[in-house]
Amino acid sequence: MNDTRFDVLTIGNAIVDIIANADDDFLVGNEIVKGAMNLIDADRAVMLYDAMGPAMEASGGSAGNTAAGVASLGGRAAYFGKVADDQLGEFFRHDIRAAGVHFETRSLQTTPPTARSMIFVTPDGERSMNTYLGACVELGPEDIEKEVVASAAVTYFEGYLWDPPLAKDAIRLAADIAHAHDRRFSMTLSDPFCVDRYRSEFLELMRSGTVDIVFANEAELKSLYQTASFEAALDAVRADCALAAVTRSEKGSVIVTRDETHAINAFPIETLVDTTGAGDLYAAGFLFGLTNGRNLVECGHIGSLAAARVIQQFGPRPRESLKALLEQEGL
Amino acid sequence: MNDTRFDVLTIGNAIVDIIANADDDFLVGNEIVKGAMNLIDADRAVMLYDAMGPAMEASGGSAGNTAAGVASLGGRAAYFGKVADDQLGEFFRHDIRAAGVHFETRSLQTTPPTARSMIFVTPDGERSMNTYLGACVELGPEDIEKEVVASAAVTYFEGYLWDPPLAKDAIRLAADIAHAHDRRFSMTLSDPFCVDRYRSEFLELMRSGTVDIVFANEAELKSLYQTASFEAALDAVRADCALAAVTRSEKGSVIVTRDETHAINAFPIETLVDTTGAGDLYAAGFLFGLTNGRNLVECGHIGSLAAARVIQQFGPRPRESLKALLEQEGL
Repeated sequence: MNDTRFDVLTIGNAIVDIIANADDDFLVGNEIVKGAMNLIDADRAVMLYDAMGPAMEASGGSAGNTAAGVASLGGRAAYFGKVADDQLGEFFRHDIRAAGVHFETRSLQTTPPTARSMIFVTPDGERSMNTYLGACVELGPEDIEKEVVASAAVTYFEGYLWDPPLAKDAIRLAADIAHAHDRRFSMTLSDPFCVDRYRSEFLELMRSGTVDIVFANEAELKSLYQTASFEAALDAVRADCALAAVTRSEKGSVIVTRDETHAINAFPIETLVDTTGAGDLYAAGFLFGLTNGRNLVECGHIGSLAAARVIQQFGPRPRESLKALLEQEGL
Repeated sequence: MNDTRFDVLTIGNAIVDIIANADDDFLVGNEIVKGAMNLIDADRAVMLYDAMGPAMEASGGSAGNTAAGVASLGGRAAYFGKVADDQLGEFFRHDIRAAGVHFETRSLQTTPPTARSMIFVTPDGERSMNTYLGACVELGPEDIEKEVVASAAVTYFEGYLWDPPLAKDAIRLAADIAHAHDRRFSMTLSDPFCVDRYRSEFLELMRSGTVDIVFANEAELKSLYQTASFEAALDAVRADCALAAVTRSEKGSVIVTRDETHAINAFPIETLVDTTGAGDLYAAGFLFGLTNGRNLVECGHIGSLAAARVIQQFGPRPRESLKALLEQEGL
């Protein structure tokens, strides 16, 4: 295995988040599934934005948040994702580069505009997302920078990429390149409803060995195996994938391999503000640890720390240096 | 005096804030005057944005924040300001309307784009602003909605409007309409360097009776009268303007009329996060009180409460309902 240029390359839908507080009645009245990623079209985007309260904007996108998290921890990160050549795209590009992430995916020069997700944060801190994919639908195999994949210790993608039409071809190409260079390939299941849309394909990715490391939260894992039993789901994923890290909110996370199981406590927090980015930052911490020689338990703790940080602020990417936080916590 | 349709109309530069943390060395290295509003051109905007860390965006603009604050307190607010027909303009328009503010100023259909201010927040919570005026330079007398001015109990504008070329004509027109309808006209001195640029004109606005109520912070008032003595500055403003409210950060505020002086304590805070919007929200609270039958001391307390709220969060407009906060505090 040659030297790596990047610890973690992530691939995902490049999205600017539009974030506002809302109450549960608002979600019900607008038929928004709470806690989920709701895909919306351009007309519904206009309708929901008209109904939305005053908002703030922040670069987001699940895998984009993970790349920014890896860089904030001091890791070498890269990202592939498609924005348009507009003001939102400029924000996205600036923010991910300013975080220290390699980002060279060409902008779309035509419509549709850069993707946005309207995120409603309820008083319990839960986020409910409404995503208009915009320019993301144009991400395809031509956006795979082969030398970046070849030189990244881990390439990680979001299950959400099965929603746009061409990205899955890009992912299969990236997996071939990664494995040809003895690199590891990883995914997150992203969302229970996303799992429901692509269950058989996600299982095939794992069972065929295309994916070596899978991230999921409890709801996503149960959805994948269509079981109400967390234990049954854990046993199933252990058989399907070499390494799985499963987050369980305040219950922490569980890391499983074929013959190991590690339960990791959640990192204590003072005030839950906004859960946006929790899973993305857990993956960032875990993959930073994994690509920097830490054992699985340490990887889990770093993931928990990064997730705990981001849920105590408004917005999907931590504003403080996670590297400094890591040193402060002796991790 | 006829019934009012609005409590407070505000007029200002319509700006989207781009906010990031930075340290003091960054300010020095980039020749940014700390705590001030630094005007920048398009080239410097590009240079500074390239140097800026990962950011978040929020609708801002001093008078825009004040209008949003009045509405959040339960007041009837209107706003005049010029955005372009672009994504930033769409955010600005959405956010101020979603806050409940009347906003009908026509968007600029050509370049330049919507104004943005790159705000660097240092660890002490101080904000240093770098404003590219963009579409704001096109605000002019044709943007004064006469019937709105005529039906607003107070019309308030920001001294910053003396920077773009046409806005001062718009302000003089608005003042004539307001006074013809027995309404009050108010301004904020905005920034010590802005005062330095337009000292004689600001004094003339007050001494001629164009402005009935002036807002300033201590540094701005001292700059106006070119004195190091706060007491001397207070005595001077008392002679020049019927009513002045002067904020002094953690020392609270002082309200003066020809023959009254009221010292108001600052509202206690837990953690100072970002001072952006402090003065704007003080003005919002004060003017909400004044147009809703409160006495001057109560006006000052409501201003202090609103200011205290916004400096404990990242971003220039409070995300929680100030009306609920007011009730909670028995104000």
